[in-house]
Amino acid sequence: MRHWKEECGVVGIAGTDCAAELVSLALYALQHRGQEGSGIVSFEDGALKAHRGLGLVSDVYTADALAGLDGTIAVGHNRYSTTGSCSAENLQPIVAHSRGSAIALSHNGNLVNALELRNSLEDQGAIFQTTMDSEVIVHMMARSRQHAFEDRVREALGRVVGAYSVILSDGQKLVGARDPRGFRPLCIGRLGDAHILASESCALDLIGADYLREVEPGELVVIEGSRIWSIPPVEKVDPKHCIFEYIYFSRPDSVVFGHAVDPVRRRLGQTLAEEHPADADLVIAVPDSSNSAALGFAERSKIPFEIGLIRNHYVGRTFIQPTPRLRDLRVKIKYNAVKDVLNGKRVVVVDDSIVRGTTMKKLVKMLKKAGASEVHLRISSPPIQHPCYYGIDTPTRNELLAATHTIEEIRRYLEVEDVEYLSRESLLRAAPQGLGYCTACFDGEYSIPVEGEHTKEILERNPV
Amino acid sequence: MRHWKEECGVVGIAGTDCAAELVSLALYALQHRGQEGSGIVSFEDGALKAHRGLGLVSDVYTADALAGLDGTIAVGHNRYSTTGSCSAENLQPIVAHSRGSAIALSHNGNLVNALELRNSLEDQGAIFQTTMDSEVIVHMMARSRQHAFEDRVREALGRVVGAYSVILSDGQKLVGARDPRGFRPLCIGRLGDAHILASESCALDLIGADYLREVEPGELVVIEGSRIWSIPPVEKVDPKHCIFEYIYFSRPDSVVFGHAVDPVRRRLGQTLAEEHPADADLVIAVPDSSNSAALGFAERSKIPFEIGLIRNHYVGRTFIQPTPRLRDLRVKIKYNAVKDVLNGKRVVVVDDSIVRGTTMKKLVKMLKKAGASEVHLRISSPPIQHPCYYGIDTPTRNELLAATHTIEEIRRYLEVEDVEYLSRESLLRAAPQGLGYCTACFDGEYSIPVEGEHTKEILERNPV
Amino acid sequence: MRHWKEECGVVGIAGTDCAAELVSLALYALQHRGQEGSGIVSFEDGALKAHRGLGLVSDVYTADALAGLDGTIAVGHNRYSTTGSCSAENLQPIVAHSRGSAIALSHNGNLVNALELRNSLEDQGAIFQTTMDSEVIVHMMARSRQHAFEDRVREALGRVVGAYSVILSDGQKLVGARDPRGFRPLCIGRLGDAHILASESCALDLIGADYLREVEPGELVVIEGSRIWSIPPVEKVDPKHCIFEYIYFSRPDSVVFGHAVDPVRRRLGQTLAEEHPADADLVIAVPDSSNSAALGFAERSKIPFEIGLIRNHYVGRTFIQPTPRLRDLRVKIKYNAVKDVLNGKRVVVVDDSIVRGTTMKKLVKMLKKAGASEVHLRISSPPIQHPCYYGIDTPTRNELLAATHTIEEIRRYLEVEDVEYLSRESLLRAAPQGLGYCTACFDGEYSIPVEGEHTKEILERNPV
Amino acid sequence: MRHWKEECGVVGIAGTDCAAELVSLALYALQHRGQEGSGIVSFEDGALKAHRGLGLVSDVYTADALAGLDGTIAVGHNRYSTTGSCSAENLQPIVAHSRGSAIALSHNGNLVNALELRNSLEDQGAIFQTTMDSEVIVHMMARSRQHAFEDRVREALGRVVGAYSVILSDGQKLVGARDPRGFRPLCIGRLGDAHILASESCALDLIGADYLREVEPGELVVIEGSRIWSIPPVEKVDPKHCIFEYIYFSRPDSVVFGHAVDPVRRRLGQTLAEEHPADADLVIAVPDSSNSAALGFAERSKIPFEIGLIRNHYVGRTFIQPTPRLRDLRVKIKYNAVKDVLNGKRVVVVDDSIVRGTTMKKLVKMLKKAGASEVHLRISSPPIQHPCYYGIDTPTRNELLAATHTIEEIRRYLEVEDVEYLSRESLLRAAPQGLGYCTACFDGEYSIPVEGEHTKEILERNPV
Repeated sequence: MRHWKEECGVVGIAGTDCAAELVSLALYALQHRGQEGSGIVSFEDGALKAHRGLGLVSDVYTADALAGLDGTIAVGHNRYSTTGSCSAENLQPIVAHSRGSAIALSHNGNLVNALELRNSLEDQGAIFQTTMDSEVIVHMMARSRQHAFEDRVREALGRVVGAYSVILSDGQKLVGARDPRGFRPLCIGRLGDAHILASESCALDLIGADYLREVEPGELVVIEGSRIWSIPPVEKVDPKHCIFEYIYFSRPDSVVFGHAVDPVRRRLGQTLAEEHPADADLVIAVPDSSNSAALGFAERSKIPFEIGLIRNHYVGRTFIQPTPRLRDLRVKIKYNAVKDVLNGKRVVVVDDSIVRGTTMKKLVKMLKKAGASEVHLRISSPPIQHPCYYGIDTPTRNELLAATHTIEEIRRYLEVEDVEYLSRESLLRAAPQGLGYCTACFDGEYSIPVEGEHTKEILERNPV
Repeated sequence: MRHWKEECGVVGIAGTDCAAELVSLALYALQHRGQEGSGIVSFEDGALKAHRGLGLVSDVYTADALAGLDGTIAVGHNRYSTTGSCSAENLQPIVAHSRGSAIALSHNGNLVNALELRNSLEDQGAIFQTTMDSEVIVHMMARSRQHAFEDRVREALGRVVGAYSVILSDGQKLVGARDPRGFRPLCIGRLGDAHILASESCALDLIGADYLREVEPGELVVIEGSRIWSIPPVEKVDPKHCIFEYIYFSRPDSVVFGHAVDPVRRRLGQTLAEEHPADADLVIAVPDSSNSAALGFAERSKIPFEIGLIRNHYVGRTFIQPTPRLRDLRVKIKYNAVKDVLNGKRVVVVDDSIVRGTTMKKLVKMLKKAGASEVHLRISSPPIQHPCYYGIDTPTRNELLAATHTIEEIRRYLEVEDVEYLSRESLLRAAPQGLGYCTACFDGEYSIPVEGEHTKEILERNPV
Repeated sequence: MRHWKEECGVVGIAGTDCAAELVSLALYALQHRGQEGSGIVSFEDGALKAHRGLGLVSDVYTADALAGLDGTIAVGHNRYSTTGSCSAENLQPIVAHSRGSAIALSHNGNLVNALELRNSLEDQGAIFQTTMDSEVIVHMMARSRQHAFEDRVREALGRVVGAYSVILSDGQKLVGARDPRGFRPLCIGRLGDAHILASESCALDLIGADYLREVEPGELVVIEGSRIWSIPPVEKVDPKHCIFEYIYFSRPDSVVFGHAVDPVRRRLGQTLAEEHPADADLVIAVPDSSNSAALGFAERSKIPFEIGLIRNHYVGRTFIQPTPRLRDLRVKIKYNAVKDVLNGKRVVVVDDSIVRGTTMKKLVKMLKKAGASEVHLRISSPPIQHPCYYGIDTPTRNELLAATHTIEEIRRYLEVEDVEYLSRESLLRAAPQGLGYCTACFDGEYSIPVEGEHTKEILERNPV
Repeated sequence: MRHWKEECGVVGIAGTDCAAELVSLALYALQHRGQEGSGIVSFEDGALKAHRGLGLVSDVYTADALAGLDGTIAVGHNRYSTTGSCSAENLQPIVAHSRGSAIALSHNGNLVNALELRNSLEDQGAIFQTTMDSEVIVHMMARSRQHAFEDRVREALGRVVGAYSVILSDGQKLVGARDPRGFRPLCIGRLGDAHILASESCALDLIGADYLREVEPGELVVIEGSRIWSIPPVEKVDPKHCIFEYIYFSRPDSVVFGHAVDPVRRRLGQTLAEEHPADADLVIAVPDSSNSAALGFAERSKIPFEIGLIRNHYVGRTFIQPTPRLRDLRVKIKYNAVKDVLNGKRVVVVDDSIVRGTTMKKLVKMLKKAGASEVHLRISSPPIQHPCYYGIDTPTRNELLAATHTIEEIRRYLEVEDVEYLSRESLLRAAPQGLGYCTACFDGEYSIPVEGEHTKEILERNPV
């Protein structure tokens, strides 16, 4: 169920005449990673063209907009801005002019020392155009004494701490990099002579590109013309891949961190069925995000899989917001229960996660009204008890249902017969082995210390 | 797979202060029946307010637009216009001013004697504002000598021949009616003191209304204030419910013609598995329209159901149209194959129907490229060999794949291992019994003779 | 001073490949005759294309919109709708489909028997798409038994009574006609092989066409290909040209009713100076409408002409409407007084007319605040004491300042030293001789009886 | 005649609840100083709100946009961007975040050492968000060690060289300053407790504020709450007021550099008549910019003033651009000749200046076609022979008609009977005495050396 907000999808392409158009299609495939706004910067003969807009990819990139984005290199970004600070100015790619050249930057992740760096830069006289943490990177680059573009990127990234998968370009080279722990994904593809960098492989599939491999944690990849080379990390640290990419964020048809997502998600459902079986007549998913896990649960439990909830996908730019007198219709606008399937049945509902629990509470009510005699809730991940500081927009701790409620309290709040979560151990056993994961949202073990919970609020005091 | 174009979704509501807002939400639930444009007419104290626009329901009805649609009665319409004649002027509801009162009309279906009636009316001096067949109905009403609104509706409908589910209002009364054969659906719901008429029950679910019953073929239902009464048909004829509503058009969570859609569709898949078993490793659907049938097939055949195709739902008003140099991406923009699921597997693909076959051909290519070793195509309906004249926008006969190709030729064209259709007999056995169906698209048995294939072309010669 | 609202500007062109584009430019030149919305209908091979929109001509006709308006015949219209009933549906040209052909109609004027005709037509079963009086004309044409398009126009116009300059086309022919009294203007021009019909000659100037002549009262002009011919009026009645075209409506650079406007307006100012001299230091105009009259006054009185008021012309589609707390800025947004010119001076202000007097009251206040020691108001037309029923949107009688106040009361209300109007006799002496004028707004002598003051209200009860 | 492009109009207001709304109205009065785009930044409790958009003031500031601009301090800007680099990103006010506070800057003028400063700043690691010269000012401020806002402004302005009238705010204080030579205007007004800074006094008139005085060259004015104080210039240099403000740029109803514009412009016309009399029948202006000068010429020469050209003011956001086949209509769209006034007459045309001469050439043709037997052209300023580097967007030298042609060659090019310019000596005699003027565009005497003609091109190489 979509309830967390992934910060971004990033794309870069070099070595083709239709760079911006291919980036727009790749961003369309990555729409699930950010739906508030989108931007593309392209370069032709060193001249930079930019188009950014609020809304869905299919609304932002009109034929006219794409016609203005000439060039053989392009960088793109989908943004999931938090409510309130969503404005055209905070859309990426960030553009900076410095020493006769222009830079474009797309960033997925969160820098935990951004405020400290920003304060230091401002003390030295730097001025900022946005309230985004990513902007410190281009400032660092502008101060670098290195000559080569990739060396300036490396020097700047050497100073930032946190989670990042970044794509940058100066119009000559396209550079992609992941932070040393590799929190967020970034993969490499090829289409003829062109190379593509993208958050997930589904973006490569749409444009017909071949998947080559994941950028390694700490690695920096440089693309120029039809050539590509790698600058390996100076020192290796234990990787901390975000395990939620497998649980929920990525599309099931993507390869992420080197592994296909759907089979992982299927195994989570199977393991969940083993760990927490249920006595029921049918298994349903909350479409579309928990479809794979629910199928896995049904398969292992031998309980039939049914379509008990229908999702309405026709959401335009300005989603219908019922006026106050028709409040409480919000969940109904998105989901409808299939009475004939549910009526008189004991139902296992498999979902991938619960954040606040408000949507799930309404769904349960809808299922019961449609006739479900029992609802057994099975979650294919452990209880979320800690906020994420590495690029996922989670609520504060006291808004997280599992941080403030016991399992029994959750059961009573949601009004279900029972609710069970996949254990952390089972999760790690079912996920691809040998990668190294960040599971801070489940266990609070933050591999990088954070400055404080208020960083973001401070940065956003003066939105442009 | 969405390849046919259903003409319309219709809604009407009377007896509530927020009539237009509820209609907009109901139209949102009926978005699958028409995505080119939408319109609402509301009445307050006899004064008529209208808002229509091209695009999705969520784009057309802004807060501002709804704020202007006061009143306790409202009529709405979603349109799936054919390419070329899609213009703001041809959006419904149709509005007509006559003898001091205004009428609004929403029509789903197709009148086969519209051109003849129009010619006759024009000979008498009538002028038309649109090229829509539905406009003759309001002309008939204006010429009626009856006093009561419902009697004028009845007299007008007595002259038209064809398929229609219509909703009309003069600001005082809301009238709903189906043609004597009942080709197209129309159901009745209640929400407090208000009554709702809608093409499918999923529209009632969204606004929290209770489903009462289907309007009968030939019946005319009148709603005034909180009262509702029925004018039964004068003479009964054999009903001819459109069987394609069960195969593909309606949402699976709807009740249509008095029966829930999902179980019917499930039975079609089961029967298909019995009639045309396959030796394969897995069953996949073409999401979302064949999900139910594919589940039925998997269940009966004991072959596991898997998610082998992912559909991208983020389609805005102006869908990205790849420029000529990126042609052939159109199917990829909508679907992606899950390699890890398909690689090396013998796959049964269950789809509900094949019209031209062009999309299916590309999908098969995509599945094979993703590694499927065999593709066994199973269609949960008989071959479509005849065009529809009763409200579905089918291509002409020679564009229908099954009208011009044998099964073996279809197999070779689609490049699949085998292709099998559900037989007409099995279809009629699996569908709800005792209703009476139109199966003209399969067998060419047209219960109402048509004027000729060119009616539509003639009407659209002078689009406004 | 702009305070009356002229109903419309009309244009038609036939015989050129860029008909719609030329019509758009002609409508731009006629923008002063209607600023609420604009529309163009073009015909190519009998197929009709339409584009209409609210706002200024330069906003409505984008390159895209014009690109869709192919054809060699086009008809256009600028509308000045009254507040409240301004909606996209009431924009002209009106389009009607009848007996296999489509008709477009642009109308400037007002039909006094429209309601009576409409009632009669509705009794016979006609339905109306708009609340505009002009729609009865196309209904009459649809009922005509004549074959030739121009004969159907003539038959229809033979039934309507009132003021009209109309342009119609069926895609083959372009027809222009004026009512028998010739209230509103309409002239003929030629550009190469093409012919143009337009409200004023300034529209011909912009597109580089030559002015041929005015359409005669009661005459009907037919244009087909490069040919043009005339159908003279059956019987002649005394012409009643609207004298306000010379006083205020038309652009000074136009030829209207066969005479150039600027010299007439200049003579009104000269005659006013003779009839009502003033002892003052300078003469100023209320730009731009009274510039010519003020120059005439200055010339004859030997008092220097100065620019004492500056008008801000940068008005976009949505004019800035000060919020309540900044009310009273409305006149300041449009005009500013030039202090250095006015300070300590006795000023003659020449304006063309006074309707309600509210704007003039604020202007006088502005002039006095800028230092004018005396304000002598001179109006280059007689007091308006009666509403117009022939196409000008005047307020009801009790809102007309001069209908309810004596000259002395007007002087006191406006807080000026003195106010004098040109007499009716002087007006008729200064205007072109031998034409025959309607002066009903000054003397109440209505040459055509009207049905009552409420016609319009009744028609607009059910706006679409 | 509008042919030069003034760079900007600037406004600031502090000390009122409706700061942004008043700024929007003031910008409306200053629309003639920039029509490509407009922006407002307001501050409330230190939080900054911004709205900018391309187009006219009346299009940019919708009610919604203004509703979002709360606060008691606001800064605004109208921009006349040069073709090609007109983009939403280059609109002012510029916003910068630095050390926990935000700054807004509006700039009218041109900094001649901007590129040098920018290079130096970029060497130190600064990054730029725009290609506007003004952005160096906020970088200088961010590097200042001063604490008070006005001291940081002063330190930054101490480093820049060139022409500037700037308005800045940090949300607490509003600061206005002019460069030491005072090239561009900036005046102070009061409205109740609030103070206003604006390019011209006509902005004060519209909002009902009282004109206090001009900001002195080199002076810095600080406004906080209802207080206002001055920081005088450290050292005085000879002032160089742009004399073109009197000739053409400013509105005639404005007080600029302490003197009313209209009387100056009138004297230019009178002096021109003395210096270059003409034997003619009438004098006409090119409306509206040369109206005052033409009246002065007519008065002194005793030749009657007539309205021989009508200007169409209804220009929307996207001005109608005739397609290639209708080229050469551009001047006709803006002006029309009044045949009846001109026919057979010897005409004196008074205009304020000639830049390239292309528009004037077409106007002369239009006048001759309308029947003018002779055209005597009189220009109320000397020949423009040198580009402006201090804030006016002039073409390069070889595009300036008078830089490459003798008077006789100009006469032949424009096809007039004779053409005469006001001499530099007469201009300086007729303009207000004791001010000190920049006349570099006439005599090439640049009081500040410029870096080279290509500064602008370099800055704009990488437009965002």
